[in-house]
Order: sequence, then structure tokens, then C-alpha cells
Amino acid sequence: MGAVAGPEIERLVQLLARLPGLGPRSARRAALHLIKKREALMMPLASAMQVALDKVQVCKTCGNIDTQNPCTVCTDPKRDDAIIVVVADVADLWALERANATQGRYHVLGATLSPLDGVGPQDLTIDALVARAHDSRVHEIILALNATVDGQTTAHYITDLLQDANVKVTRLAHGVPVGGELDYLDEGTLSAAMRQRTLF
Amino acid sequence: MGAVAGPEIERLVQLLARLPGLGPRSARRAALHLIKKREALMMPLASAMQVALDKVQVCKTCGNIDTQNPCTVCTDPKRDDAIIVVVADVADLWALERANATQGRYHVLGATLSPLDGVGPQDLTIDALVARAHDSRVHEIILALNATVDGQTTAHYITDLLQDANVKVTRLAHGVPVGGELDYLDEGTLSAAMRQRTLF
Ligand SMILES: [Zn+2]
Ligand SMILES: [Zn+2]
Repeated sequence: MGAVAGPEIERLVQLLARLPGLGPRSARRAALHLIKKREALMMPLASAMQVALDKVQVCKTCGNIDTQNPCTVCTDPKRDDAIIVVVADVADLWALERANATQGRYHVLGATLSPLDGVGPQDLTIDALVARAHDSRVHEIILALNATVDGQTTAHYITDLLQDANVKVTRLAHGVPVGGELDYLDEGTLSAAMRQRTLF
Repeated sequence: MGAVAGPEIERLVQLLARLPGLGPRSARRAALHLIKKREALMMPLASAMQVALDKVQVCKTCGNIDTQNPCTVCTDPKRDDAIIVVVADVADLWALERANATQGRYHVLGATLSPLDGVGPQDLTIDALVARAHDSRVHEIILALNATVDGQTTAHYITDLLQDANVKVTRLAHGVPVGGELDYLDEGTLSAAMRQRTLF
């Protein structure tokens, strides 16, 4: 294809292929689509990326990504200063916001501890979290981490570090996903859902 | 998410979601990935798109997409002027080039006839193809169109129009895909593969 379409298009395809969710084949389709929808899609997308490059920053308080710093959540006076929701990634923060799951503020760790992948405490924003937890306004740290080995390892590690802070440390409930079918769930989830059952 | 991440990021997500292969969820992941890989990916991709916007054109001869016009294939002196391979879309041209399937030149129709979708002959570059077929250097028109109802309707329509031109009109063979398993193939393919069997 390089010889046919020229190195400029080949480069566009190769860069698109590095987006999560796009393989080499779909990157070619995406490049063609962009070229065909030149005015309607490629020009606006190039300009949206330029705007993002110019404006988007990492919040120095919580690690969220936003066009203002501190971010919209950190500066929102209606948010509850008493609660910090700890997430591994900005994607998790976005997911919780879409679900309207909390009125608290956030802390983005950047990753979970993963000894196998060489991710240690120094790679996460754990020191900053511990400092925030010692703010007298903060009463609860909610660990909204994946229910995976790495997520739970991280949760335990953080819980230990927060012993001295005057905060309650909580984590998300285990249970049946909304719309989930019982006979597809693993036994750990089912027994946790049974233990944590609520009044109907 | 709009309220959390700001309208600039929301717009980036919405534009990415219009790429084939990316839904709303993967568009969010792609946007986050771009923001995190600011220097390594978002800057080069924005600039590759700007280069494509500045340089990429539709070949006025064959409909291929390239940074030169006429395109690399049309201007390549080593290509065979006697053969024009007719494809519906530039993606098909790229696929044939990757396969090194032909030394001929191309003609991109832009679509296939599709009465149900309101795509008629006037929406395709058929007039230009007929004109090219009357060039005395051209001896064969290979219809490399999808083996679908619309593809075959288009093939028949073009074949009729080329009655007066002094060219042989051919189409791709039907058969067993390389690596394909017989018991997954439909009966039409199997009987065509049998009829068009070749010496071992
Ligand atoms: Zn923030
Ligand atoms: Zn051309």
C-alpha cells in the first residue's frame, strides 16, 4: 500500500493503528474514511486534536484530565470535600461520573500496583493521596479499584498507609451486575452478593 | 462526562466515535490514550492529518487516493495499459495492491449500484470507465467487485455498457478461500469452485 498511496497516507494509517481498538485493517478503513470525509470529519478532528493539545492538562490536585487546572471536579463548590474516591485511571473517573455514582472528589493513581509488570508504589500518586487524606476536611476514602488481584493488592497497600490518617477507608460492594444473570456469575461474586444482601 | 472533562475533550471523543470501528466506549478510550500519549501519538497524528489534508487528492483518472494526481498507479510506466481493474472502493484497490494481484491499472467506481439504498449509475464513475474502455490500448476490463447482489448487479450493468468497446470483460473467480474449510462454505461457492477447478 505504501507504494500505491504514498508515505503520507501510510503514516496516517500507522498512527491510527496505535489507537486502542483499531488494528492495522481498521486503521486503513479509518484513514480512508477520514480522507473521504475530509471537510465533515478530518478537518474537525485535526482541529479538535489541536485544541486538546493546546488546552488539556493533568489536574495537579487529583490527576484528572481537563482543560482547567485544578480540574472541574476539584474546583466545583458543590462537591463533598469529605470524600475522596480513589481510581486507577481517568477512564474509571469518567465511568463513575457517567453513572453519577458519587458527589465526592477524586484521586487518580495512574495505575494499579503490579509487581509482575514492574509497577511499584513510586509509579502511583500514592504519596499525594496520603497527604490529601490527612486534610482534616476528609472523612472517607473510597477505593474504587478493579476487583482484580492487582486492584485489591493496591487497595490493601493504600489501606495500610492510611492507618494514621483520621479517615474511614471503604471499597465498592461486590454483587450481581444490574441485568446480570446469576448462572453466569462466579462463586465469589455470588457469595459476596449473598453476604452483602440488602432489604427489598 | 461533558461536565467533568470539558467540552473540548467531549468533542474529541464525539469525532473519534465517527471513525469506523470505534464506538462511543472505544472512542473515549482512544481520546484518553491520545491525551496520555500527547507527544508520542497525538502530536504526530494531528500533524499527519494536517499533511493528508494538505496533500491528499482523488486521482482524476482512476479515482484512487494519493498525494499526487494522476496517482502513482496511473503514472507508473511499468503498469500494463491493456488492463483496467474495476473496483468499488479505494479500500478494494489497496487490498489488491497488498496482494500484488495485478499489474493492470485501476478504476474506482466509488460504490456499487444499490437500488434499495438509492445508489444509481449516476452516483458511480461509470461514464469515465466507458470512456477509458474505448482507449485502443485497453484490451481487458477486470470487474473486481464484491460477490454480493449489489456487486454482481453492478458487474452486469457495466458489462452491458461495454458491449461496443473492443475489450474483453472478465471477473474474479469464485472458489475456496486460501485456508478455507469446505464444510463452512456455502453451496454456491463450492459448486463454482468445482466447475472452475484447475490442474494440480
Ligand atoms: Zn482535579
Ligand atoms: Zn489514478
